[in-house]
Amino acid sequence: MNFENAIKKIGGIDKEVIEKIQKRLDNLTKPLGSLGRLEEIVKQIGGITGEVFPSVKNKTIVIMCADNGVVDEGVSSCPKSVTATVTKNFMKGFTGINVFSRHAGASIKVVDIGVDDDIFEEGIINKKIRKSTWNMAKGPAMQREEAIKAIEVGIETIEELKEKKVNLIGTGEMGIGNTTTSSAVAAVLTECDIKDVVGMGSGLTKEDLKKKIKIIGHCIDINKPELRDPIDVLAKVGGFDIAGLVGCFLGAALYRIPIVIDGFISATAALVAVKIKPEVKNFIFPSHGSAEPGSEKIMKELGLEPMLELGMRLGEGTGAVLGFQIIDMAVMAYSEMGTFQVANIEPYKPLN
Amino acid sequence: MNFENAIKKIGGIDKEVIEKIQKRLDNLTKPLGSLGRLEEIVKQIGGITGEVFPSVKNKTIVIMCADNGVVDEGVSSCPKSVTATVTKNFMKGFTGINVFSRHAGASIKVVDIGVDDDIFEEGIINKKIRKSTWNMAKGPAMQREEAIKAIEVGIETIEELKEKKVNLIGTGEMGIGNTTTSSAVAAVLTECDIKDVVGMGSGLTKEDLKKKIKIIGHCIDINKPELRDPIDVLAKVGGFDIAGLVGCFLGAALYRIPIVIDGFISATAALVAVKIKPEVKNFIFPSHGSAEPGSEKIMKELGLEPMLELGMRLGEGTGAVLGFQIIDMAVMAYSEMGTFQVANIEPYKPLN
Repeated sequence: MNFENAIKKIGGIDKEVIEKIQKRLDNLTKPLGSLGRLEEIVKQIGGITGEVFPSVKNKTIVIMCADNGVVDEGVSSCPKSVTATVTKNFMKGFTGINVFSRHAGASIKVVDIGVDDDIFEEGIINKKIRKSTWNMAKGPAMQREEAIKAIEVGIETIEELKEKKVNLIGTGEMGIGNTTTSSAVAAVLTECDIKDVVGMGSGLTKEDLKKKIKIIGHCIDINKPELRDPIDVLAKVGGFDIAGLVGCFLGAALYRIPIVIDGFISATAALVAVKIKPEVKNFIFPSHGSAEPGSEKIMKELGLEPMLELGMRLGEGTGAVLGFQIIDMAVMAYSEMGTFQVANIEPYKPLN
Repeated sequence: MNFENAIKKIGGIDKEVIEKIQKRLDNLTKPLGSLGRLEEIVKQIGGITGEVFPSVKNKTIVIMCADNGVVDEGVSSCPKSVTATVTKNFMKGFTGINVFSRHAGASIKVVDIGVDDDIFEEGIINKKIRKSTWNMAKGPAMQREEAIKAIEVGIETIEELKEKKVNLIGTGEMGIGNTTTSSAVAAVLTECDIKDVVGMGSGLTKEDLKKKIKIIGHCIDINKPELRDPIDVLAKVGGFDIAGLVGCFLGAALYRIPIVIDGFISATAALVAVKIKPEVKNFIFPSHGSAEPGSEKIMKELGLEPMLELGMRLGEGTGAVLGFQIIDMAVMAYSEMGTFQVANIEPYKPLN
């Protein structure tokens, strides 16, 4: 579905189902509300899917892979070629996300949306917009049309997952330089100081960090992204990976599948999606709080609180997989715990 | 092993193994340190077990079940009989911990250490010290000898798990009134205001809460527990369930098995164990931050930070199971991720 139609068709959540789920939750053999946020999770999934007994068994992490022209400015501790190497390695089974998803019973779907190399590996989906964005220190990272096309790649990706009956999605990425693009997008959209949303990425020194902040400031200055036009911001100082993930968040809302934020880059994409269409927020779940400082800023802007605090900053969707496990447990507890009638107990209620 | 000998035999952690694990962690195909606390977890488990490639596959939640005489004062929203009913229900497969442990591949070991009823259900281990503690609002909850005996039940329980090659332990409990006893113990040992460690338990009203605080104050006043003698505190204002869990923490340190805190009651037991023998701290892992306010106070005292923030307050060991999943993933990531050599990448290092 094209971008314009997708945006129009995103709907609200099913409040009737949420009420039914609440009723069952309150009748489970436990103190009222004692499963805390797990109860909120189940209700949200019910509201999204319209099912009183939803399933989240069929899980997939979408990994958007792309290169960023701004790497030419020396903003990363890794050479650009690492993007292509790691993208290919996703098919070899030993990267972080391979191990995480294997143990959580999740699949991965790797999309080349702009890697600066030809990727022939079987299993990697070729949806390349172009080999790498342009260097945003010298002009816009991409054209507006390219940004929309990249978003549509994300929407299509979710449409395909919907056909395969995937019922829980996580958002991963691989792209050297993408904490730089994310920081630029986040700084503009949250209207905060650049230094509050810039971190050490894959391993910068303090001096490198100062340089990164300066370059991001320069990129924003010369491109003048328009705060009230999130696609303009995305096109001028974002990346193909972020744009693809924006499409994933929009697509998840459109096709009514719960979708989980991973780290900073993924959170940035969620923010762009919500700025495009505020209703998307109802379909999004947080996972961990990334070690990248921009993550916290965006979570606040989105009104979300991380479920996990582990100081991780690996990306690839690894944190989202840990989120999967909590969501899975929430649904299982709700579905399989006994009611007070079965348990032979009077409901726990205040005495007086 | 008896209490005195156990305390003497608890040793330190293996620093050489920790160094070896660090070396491998730094050679995995990821930015240095990017797995955050997962890296610390693996090192701690290595230091405990002495294994460079430790396993945490064989997981068990120990659930100590006991009644508390102080329930006669009206401190809980549930009748005392719920302890026996839920203890029996653990064998029926539909309680919270049944669902959680089943999905995480963990076993449960249910110990009747002082339930106020005869429990004949197969599978429940009878180590009853006595049917319920005395009402601590009228005198000590138990004799000092009983407290030590209950601790020894915990140590024995871990010894049996060691024989079955269990390599990851979680700490659960069931006992109406045990947030009251935990608050009393925590208030004394952390030397803080009672109201800072008292919460709504299984569902009190604001008025009930005030009453609970007043009663706990009264129990401490009349029993005069000795701050520098943790066993005196445990005996006078604790419970058999807490004492059993204290033994589990000591036993885990003695038999060198990683052990995970669940919620407030379990954290209270961990604090008592560490006050008895500070080295026990090296063997303990946090899981979630309980909705009970005393949990945060104790975590601070122990220098631990919860990995999960879900506002749960169900007990039974449910939060510890979510901790199991994170620990499991940490060990898997460490064991199964590829090294830079395998991945065909130069190690990620700062450029300059």
